Amino acid sequence: MNRLQDYGIKIGSLPTGTLNKITDLEGVTVGHSTLSNGSIQTGVTSIFPHQGNIFKNKVVASTYVLNGFGKTVGTIQINELGTIETPILLTNTFSVGTCSTALLKYMLEQNHDIGATTGTVNAVVAECNDMFLNDIRSFAVQEAHVFEALQNTSINFAEGNVGAGTGMKCFGLKGGIGSSSRLIEYEHGTYTLGVLALTNFGQLEHLQIDGKKVGLDLKQVVEQSTSFSRDKGSVIIVLATDLPASSRQIHRLLKRITVGLSRTGSYIGHGSGDVFIGFSTRNQINHYSNKQLHQIINIHEEDLDQAFIAVADATEEAIINSMLAASATTGKNGNHLHSLKNYMQMLTKKENSDGNSLL
Amino acid sequence: MNRLQDYGIKIGSLPTGTLNKITDLEGVTVGHSTLSNGSIQTGVTSIFPHQGNIFKNKVVASTYVLNGFGKTVGTIQINELGTIETPILLTNTFSVGTCSTALLKYMLEQNHDIGATTGTVNAVVAECNDMFLNDIRSFAVQEAHVFEALQNTSINFAEGNVGAGTGMKCFGLKGGIGSSSRLIEYEHGTYTLGVLALTNFGQLEHLQIDGKKVGLDLKQVVEQSTSFSRDKGSVIIVLATDLPASSRQIHRLLKRITVGLSRTGSYIGHGSGDVFIGFSTRNQINHYSNKQLHQIINIHEEDLDQAFIAVADATEEAIINSMLAASATTGKNGNHLHSLKNYMQMLTKKENSDGNSLL
Amino acid sequence: MNRLQDYGIKIGSLPTGTLNKITDLEGVTVGHSTLSNGSIQTGVTSIFPHQGNIFKNKVVASTYVLNGFGKTVGTIQINELGTIETPILLTNTFSVGTCSTALLKYMLEQNHDIGATTGTVNAVVAECNDMFLNDIRSFAVQEAHVFEALQNTSINFAEGNVGAGTGMKCFGLKGGIGSSSRLIEYEHGTYTLGVLALTNFGQLEHLQIDGKKVGLDLKQVVEQSTSFSRDKGSVIIVLATDLPASSRQIHRLLKRITVGLSRTGSYIGHGSGDVFIGFSTRNQINHYSNKQLHQIINIHEEDLDQAFIAVADATEEAIINSMLAASATTGKNGNHLHSLKNYMQMLTKKENSDGNSLL
Amino acid sequence: MNRLQDYGIKIGSLPTGTLNKITDLEGVTVGHSTLSNGSIQTGVTSIFPHQGNIFKNKVVASTYVLNGFGKTVGTIQINELGTIETPILLTNTFSVGTCSTALLKYMLEQNHDIGATTGTVNAVVAECNDMFLNDIRSFAVQEAHVFEALQNTSINFAEGNVGAGTGMKCFGLKGGIGSSSRLIEYEHGTYTLGVLALTNFGQLEHLQIDGKKVGLDLKQVVEQSTSFSRDKGSVIIVLATDLPASSRQIHRLLKRITVGLSRTGSYIGHGSGDVFIGFSTRNQINHYSNKQLHQIINIHEEDLDQAFIAVADATEEAIINSMLAASATTGKNGNHLHSLKNYMQMLTKKENSDGNSLL
Repeated sequence: MNRLQDYGIKIGSLPTGTLNKITDLEGVTVGHSTLSNGSIQTGVTSIFPHQGNIFKNKVVASTYVLNGFGKTVGTIQINELGTIETPILLTNTFSVGTCSTALLKYMLEQNHDIGATTGTVNAVVAECNDMFLNDIRSFAVQEAHVFEALQNTSINFAEGNVGAGTGMKCFGLKGGIGSSSRLIEYEHGTYTLGVLALTNFGQLEHLQIDGKKVGLDLKQVVEQSTSFSRDKGSVIIVLATDLPASSRQIHRLLKRITVGLSRTGSYIGHGSGDVFIGFSTRNQINHYSNKQLHQIINIHEEDLDQAFIAVADATEEAIINSMLAASATTGKNGNHLHSLKNYMQMLTKKENSDGNSLL
Repeated sequence: MNRLQDYGIKIGSLPTGTLNKITDLEGVTVGHSTLSNGSIQTGVTSIFPHQGNIFKNKVVASTYVLNGFGKTVGTIQINELGTIETPILLTNTFSVGTCSTALLKYMLEQNHDIGATTGTVNAVVAECNDMFLNDIRSFAVQEAHVFEALQNTSINFAEGNVGAGTGMKCFGLKGGIGSSSRLIEYEHGTYTLGVLALTNFGQLEHLQIDGKKVGLDLKQVVEQSTSFSRDKGSVIIVLATDLPASSRQIHRLLKRITVGLSRTGSYIGHGSGDVFIGFSTRNQINHYSNKQLHQIINIHEEDLDQAFIAVADATEEAIINSMLAASATTGKNGNHLHSLKNYMQMLTKKENSDGNSLL
Repeated sequence: MNRLQDYGIKIGSLPTGTLNKITDLEGVTVGHSTLSNGSIQTGVTSIFPHQGNIFKNKVVASTYVLNGFGKTVGTIQINELGTIETPILLTNTFSVGTCSTALLKYMLEQNHDIGATTGTVNAVVAECNDMFLNDIRSFAVQEAHVFEALQNTSINFAEGNVGAGTGMKCFGLKGGIGSSSRLIEYEHGTYTLGVLALTNFGQLEHLQIDGKKVGLDLKQVVEQSTSFSRDKGSVIIVLATDLPASSRQIHRLLKRITVGLSRTGSYIGHGSGDVFIGFSTRNQINHYSNKQLHQIINIHEEDLDQAFIAVADATEEAIINSMLAASATTGKNGNHLHSLKNYMQMLTKKENSDGNSLL
Repeated sequence: MNRLQDYGIKIGSLPTGTLNKITDLEGVTVGHSTLSNGSIQTGVTSIFPHQGNIFKNKVVASTYVLNGFGKTVGTIQINELGTIETPILLTNTFSVGTCSTALLKYMLEQNHDIGATTGTVNAVVAECNDMFLNDIRSFAVQEAHVFEALQNTSINFAEGNVGAGTGMKCFGLKGGIGSSSRLIEYEHGTYTLGVLALTNFGQLEHLQIDGKKVGLDLKQVVEQSTSFSRDKGSVIIVLATDLPASSRQIHRLLKRITVGLSRTGSYIGHGSGDVFIGFSTRNQINHYSNKQLHQIINIHEEDLDQAFIAVADATEEAIINSMLAASATTGKNGNHLHSLKNYMQMLTKKENSDGNSLL
């Protein structure tokens, strides 16, 4: 019962992919390195756009900063060139530097020409602040952890408090890593759109599940171990698709993440770094193909609506999945976060003041 | 029963202003010119930031283009200089030129130095496409209509199918003009935040009211007079506040309009020009005050969260108000739009498949 | 002797196109409507991206606002969708509304489905403020003038004080319309890059021609008829190319216009609306081709450098051409502007204080 | 003879500050850590906006990405919140991670509440790629070097091949760190505007000094030790001022850096990460001052022109200074870069084909 679908709740009407995860995209894999020990509750998560040499075959990409109280690195070059040329890493706020350096070393190992004959490489690392559960000031993430996350990736990756999600807090409960996917059908083919969320935002009273305002009721029953109620977190969403899309079109897709995010109860808090990164596996650009023209395959703009709905629905579900998959956790200073999972039985049975069941 | 509050439904927990309209902001007034006659269903709406000479005392302002399938004019200069120096006009897509010219003439009349000794003036005109009910190809709006909207403004303006809202369509029902406001309290004072929406977006099946997914049920009972189901509309939101805010901070406020919009069921359709314009009446800049320094009063960034919630809540309510205040209308080609108002009794009584009342 | 090349001065080392104008691009034509009579010194200029139905076959496009003290319309949609679907119009600041309406009517005449069955159309109109020579408050441009500019276009269009350039002022001298082009060669083909400038910016003392700081010397000999010395103007640059480029890549090209502009002596004055619009005739998108995928041909990013140089060089030359082609003009209030042409003999002969000839 | 002023060449007509450096701004200091040993030619440079606790008293700031082929970190948050809360670091491309981590540690040392009770801190690190002279793949910069650059700052900092400038290459010659300042006078006071440049861009044939196209002549006499002629570098410019300016106004200032950059001969190469960061020491925001309003003092928009000229002039001079102060250097693979300084005698004496002296 670690996923929303296990409770018979379906967001929207589009079908999901086989795994209902970002890894429904062929070639996409995810890896984790988890540090969970007392006051250290943190980690690293990697997302690979494909299994080849990403520097040599860059994926067309874009980013969208919904709220810029964040420290994601790599966005300047993605915006200019419309490509991603490394795996994407997620981690805690203070480990971006270490992840960035380790990711560079990983890329250099694979590409002996980088920094020698062919310029540099643009590492992409996003972050949330896990200081509630994690002693972020101790800089626990080491380069070895990053390599672990980069070297052990799979299609069947874990959700919840793993990898970068280990210490995260979402709507006052335990957050972390969640994922979901949708299939969209056109006359020219069926495409997959997958989302991976690192959730660390929101206040419990605002939580909505499938449109139901369960937050206030939950707040009354959840023993809050803290008064840390301000939305000081962040949310990172990585979107992968095989839809034939340009970087401009991916940017349009990324903006619709806001819709799914809003539906869970976020009002995009001041202190929340809400940063979205997306790529299309369908359009790849060879690093060495200069002196040649290349083609970017685009879906017709008018056909994007279905994809927009898929983005919103998958985002909403991925966020709730990140909470359902996460276990209750005690970390730094004895700070404790409950798991949404433990309240789902109550929510699906309990009636609200109107006599309606909450879910 | 033309407003959501008449049904005992309250969006969020913040108090509303006295009128629960954008005109709760001192100095803000709204005027309409309505053309409703057979296949002509259109008009003009004006919003005045204050009652003085707006060119001489510009209000600090910003814009946010959520989805740029739109033809709003004036945004380039607002973005550069952070000020608005005319009333804001709303109209149909093809009447932006006429409104723009008439607004210039209105400003020239008041300011004999514009275009003579002191440069030009930046007219702000936003639009939605009302072609479903209105014969937009006939360019029915004349300069006289614009002057009418500019000259007859009030605090107690009408909502629904009036002014620019006359021919608009929202979630497959009649849309138009709607408004709402919220009060936000700080140690340094109580501020008002008001929103005016021109609504012309969405598909009926996606409509949500206060989190309830009423759209699918409504779709079964509403006789649709058309197969024009794609979201080809737009939504314009004007935000006014007396919060001491810089243009950067107003930009942050405007981004939270997306939250309220999403909560009504929008997924930000490709064809929808979703453009938001905001200003703070608290910070005004005198046109002739060069050679002097001036002060922009800012709220502390960390205190913005409450304002963000106010923006989301007021937006959600203003959109629903625009539908509740609108009457069923027949226009071009006999195209007909029903009014949400006519279904509210059903929605508040009818139970859905789970035995819950829909609202 | 109306062009820089007539003086043997060559900007950069790239070859020019046959005409050394934007119309070296196959399919591109330019039309003017000129109003020059006493205190009325203004007009309209049209640029056609191709000779077919532009709405049905949109050109891939982008815009770049270098300084947003301007009132160009149509940019929001270009930025979102990456296409232009009408001819581009240039005019004076207060005639944007009239041009916009007339351009819509022109498009509706050609496309009976716009506003009836297929949504609206995005008119693109850019402007400069010609109030020094022109009685801009009189709104002299009528719809008939716009139609004239739209209906009489050619490859061999005039430069200088014609069309939108009629009343413009550049570096304190007579400005207007200027153009230039460059050829760029790759292994995959030779491409043309053309620029059309509407110049209305700058202070005489800053003028540079081909790197020579001729402004201060000119200032001493030119009788200034006015103290209107602040840079309150604007510059609009339209860039056309058959380079296979995406909207993102065209955006990159447009940014390099700044280089050419800077080389003429601009420091991007506060009051100057510096707006650039570009399109590639190579990539066109059919309005009715939804349900199909389409291909955008891209040049490899690393090959753009040559195109960047072409943009800078063509811009610099187009700006100087706009001044050389313009005749001395007397307009509103007897305001008079001298022509750069009249000083070229002096500049090419005169030596500066170092004993060097000024040009 | 390490500065342009030593040759009697003056860029523009505005007076310079006492030092003609960014440190003419009261409170601004600069520190270097230089690694120069064989194939290691790199380092770190720090710029302090003021000498107090920068996290507690943030300076109002902005960034402008002219060309985003770069890896600067910290810009997302500067753009959102309009403040800088750490010293700014400059380094080589692959050392951004290490600098970022070390800067965090430096900030944590000073502020025990960061990451404990008050959220995180946004490290600002910019970079250029020094791989021509430096073995960038060896990650030579260690945290100790960063602390050295942070702890030993002064007003009389060195220019040329020091700190982050150690291995940089500019216009095919030795680049590095350069600085310049200007004074601007208003009725309300005299303000200083200073620029620090890290230069690593350009091709020799394009070099211009004070408008003179000296590049082609230089190219004929300089023995190029390499065919590495593509503009693969970058340029970082940090702008400091005590002008009372908002983040929006600083953004406007930063855009004018492009003018000075263009005047030196840049055409903003594809591979050049051109990133500008600016702040005003006049407007500071206290981290703990929430629940209070604060005032941002703004200069009137119309008065900015003089500041724009100052930005362009100081940028042009700072770039040339970075080259004049740099010594000829041999680094990785025996790659050698000549110093502009060694050719200045020739340039000031030599006549070009027109019989004019080159400088």
